[in-house]
Amino acid sequence: MDSTFVVGIDVGGQTSKLGVVDARGTVLAQTVIRTDTYNEIEPYIAELAEAVKRIIKEAGVEGNVRGIGVGAPNANYYDGTIENAVNLSWGGAKSIPFAKLLSKAMGGLPVSLTNDANAAAVGEMTYGAARGMKNFIMITLGTGVGSGIVINGDVVYGHDGFAGELGHVTAVRNNGRSCNCGKTGCLEAYASAIGMAKTAREWLELSDEPSLLRSLDNITSKDVYEAAKDGDKLALKVFDFTGKMLGRSFADFIAFSSPEAIVLFGGLARAKEFLLGPIEEAMNGNVLPLWRNKVKIVFSQLKESDAAILGASALAWEL
Amino acid sequence: MDSTFVVGIDVGGQTSKLGVVDARGTVLAQTVIRTDTYNEIEPYIAELAEAVKRIIKEAGVEGNVRGIGVGAPNANYYDGTIENAVNLSWGGAKSIPFAKLLSKAMGGLPVSLTNDANAAAVGEMTYGAARGMKNFIMITLGTGVGSGIVINGDVVYGHDGFAGELGHVTAVRNNGRSCNCGKTGCLEAYASAIGMAKTAREWLELSDEPSLLRSLDNITSKDVYEAAKDGDKLALKVFDFTGKMLGRSFADFIAFSSPEAIVLFGGLARAKEFLLGPIEEAMNGNVLPLWRNKVKIVFSQLKESDAAILGASALAWEL
Repeated sequence: MDSTFVVGIDVGGQTSKLGVVDARGTVLAQTVIRTDTYNEIEPYIAELAEAVKRIIKEAGVEGNVRGIGVGAPNANYYDGTIENAVNLSWGGAKSIPFAKLLSKAMGGLPVSLTNDANAAAVGEMTYGAARGMKNFIMITLGTGVGSGIVINGDVVYGHDGFAGELGHVTAVRNNGRSCNCGKTGCLEAYASAIGMAKTAREWLELSDEPSLLRSLDNITSKDVYEAAKDGDKLALKVFDFTGKMLGRSFADFIAFSSPEAIVLFGGLARAKEFLLGPIEEAMNGNVLPLWRNKVKIVFSQLKESDAAILGASALAWEL
Repeated sequence: MDSTFVVGIDVGGQTSKLGVVDARGTVLAQTVIRTDTYNEIEPYIAELAEAVKRIIKEAGVEGNVRGIGVGAPNANYYDGTIENAVNLSWGGAKSIPFAKLLSKAMGGLPVSLTNDANAAAVGEMTYGAARGMKNFIMITLGTGVGSGIVINGDVVYGHDGFAGELGHVTAVRNNGRSCNCGKTGCLEAYASAIGMAKTAREWLELSDEPSLLRSLDNITSKDVYEAAKDGDKLALKVFDFTGKMLGRSFADFIAFSSPEAIVLFGGLARAKEFLLGPIEEAMNGNVLPLWRNKVKIVFSQLKESDAAILGASALAWEL
């Protein structure tokens, strides 16, 4: 593998980030293009392919690129398609043969596709906190809650390619919050950045407890984090609650695949100081005795700016 | 594999069943020995080895046996031990090197060990309802609720060999019933044969509703089944509730590994007529839209009397 390289592409709703990566996880060249200015897939793929060629040239590795790994919402690993991606301007209620289109535009270079959280799991296993682990669960705490499950060193794709939707297990059975997916009580409705902000807003309305957050108009998870750092009691309780919801669900995940660790990644995971304690307490309080205090909670070590590209690129090594 | 055979052993608390099996899943010879008359492992192993030799001779396949598969409570696949098996008279708070002891007593014949539910999953995949499936979850509904998870054709053992304890996910978060494991609200506390009988007893006490079950002293799940067959309304509601508890949890299991099917096995699974409807309704009502009405609920097709032996024996083919 000495002189081969891969390309990683992270397709987001607004922008797509891409980079050329070597076997050690160094990003040699990278760039960003807009995703949301295209309503059709063809011109987007054309610009994306141009950008890939540009950074390969910039990195000086022409002819030595092994393949392209892509992380994208609603991606199906088995057939390389993106299905019903309503959050992508060229997505919508259809199936797009993304891997095939990009490979064709790149003169036949192999392309592998998976969802963002699975890509992050592969990245963490190849370059990050899960290096050397064969059994772990990656939980991404961002706008939503995503997951990538690794068993015996392989990402779990399931019967249809869509396994690992742990943001949509039921965290609250009765009178649970509505979730974007159409269900109620999903873990994502409580433990995502948006869910945590909602908890703060609900609690401010239900009590008269003083809080730094009362002066703010449209509270975000970042506001809650800043307030917690300033010692705000209500903000700290919001983190306790969010961590407890995560930990309780983690206990169930452990009963499933008995992982060595649960790895947390994404914006909210930066709040380790406020989340780790409540997560561990709820997790160990809800798990079978045989796993009590045995499963590690690990926070991602990947450089935030490179993580998405690295995660996607790691897929390409398996091509 | 034409002329090779395997031995399957199902170690239960009271008895151990064993048989010689061919590649088609035919049990050529079988016998039963007591488990609970031994307080030490050594004499038990000695009698077990004698019994194995006897049925191999009876089947006329001496010299053609490839290995022995064992299903046992608290068994660890990775190291062939039985750990802290308080329900076995020679078990207790220790680690027993079962595979090693039996292999030695059998002159070095390879022995593979796993827990009962995993053995049932392998049996179902090799000879039963899951033949040809690569992704499914086996749920055993007996005295307890056990599980064996198959992903990409392999049983999931996890980091430590104990994965697949789906009877101990939390089905009821608040004021849940006590479970034998020490936790509260576990699925097993509601959906096992014992849990279902408890539901019936609780409901009889809480209401004045007439029921055939009122005349009985110590209600079992079998009594509830018989009453349901006679059209008893309370018994039918107990099945509805039990099925709902199962279906709600199955929805979370699907979000994890996206299986092709969930296969039900064990005493309670015989009540398909009363369980299937409520399970499917609760499962499809709690799962992401992409899986709605897509995951099959399958009832085991293995002959009950042979199932335990077949399940354990199937392990030995992988030796």
